[in-house]
Amino acid sequence: MHKHIHLTPIGVVRSTRTEVTDDDWDRETVHIELDPSRFSEEALMGLGDFSHVEVIFHMDQVDPAKIETGARHPRNNADWPKVGIFAQRGKNRPNQIGTTFCRVLKVEGRKLYVGGLDAVDGSPVLDIKPWVIEFAPRGTVTQPVWITELMKGYWSS
Amino acid sequence: MHKHIHLTPIGVVRSTRTEVTDDDWDRETVHIELDPSRFSEEALMGLGDFSHVEVIFHMDQVDPAKIETGARHPRNNADWPKVGIFAQRGKNRPNQIGTTFCRVLKVEGRKLYVGGLDAVDGSPVLDIKPWVIEFAPRGTVTQPVWITELMKGYWSS
Repeated sequence: MHKHIHLTPIGVVRSTRTEVTDDDWDRETVHIELDPSRFSEEALMGLGDFSHVEVIFHMDQVDPAKIETGARHPRNNADWPKVGIFAQRGKNRPNQIGTTFCRVLKVEGRKLYVGGLDAVDGSPVLDIKPWVIEFAPRGTVTQPVWITELMKGYWSS
Repeated sequence: MHKHIHLTPIGVVRSTRTEVTDDDWDRETVHIELDPSRFSEEALMGLGDFSHVEVIFHMDQVDPAKIETGARHPRNNADWPKVGIFAQRGKNRPNQIGTTFCRVLKVEGRKLYVGGLDAVDGSPVLDIKPWVIEFAPRGTVTQPVWITELMKGYWSS
């Protein structure tokens, strides 16, 4: 099961957030810039017809020594239950992949301007996918109370 | 912008779908098995309290020669507009990453049983994240007509 996978970033995040912090992401101004050596503006053609995109990025500023492979209290807050790393969205996770669903604000050449991206400046982007309504979770959506509490200041305080 | 990123799969998809085909994914029975050499069942602890998960996987059976970096008609269907590879979710994309939002059916040891995963048997899994309501696209969600047509037989025919 150990086959390694080699990826090449398709672009980079340009954000007003330059430090890795947890909350209040809606205050940032963000765009993604495609790697000009590999992509023309054709690669983003038609994306403006979607209201939202999923951005898949690499959280490369995570300290490898801090990556959790078992369970922990989210944000090390003992008020919240100890849960597995795959039952939380914290950054200190195997493979350091982030996925976030953002508003499409504007496509300009090789630049995609988005609203609501929780990635720091310089983060490598691995993929961009349009948000497709039929792909949304189907059926009743439920989650535990702790995550609702954790998310309270996430987008804005 | 060319820094390579090396990932190690956290597990593998076990699915009744063994061939790469496009549609009718709901008919399959699927589970994900964590790599037993690196993860204990602790890593999935608490995931059963979420109704849905996002599965991030590597579409490793894609033919590298077919990867699109510009624009094309989705599924090569000329009835649909030519759009950029990042404005569609087709598998022949840079980095071959798939992301899908599945129902959590059951957690059993290192195995996570899911409903609605469009990954073929043997696909390496890169990450599992709980679906969090506050992470869903915010505001009005819109998409072009062609993708609604394309999705018609995707989950069931």
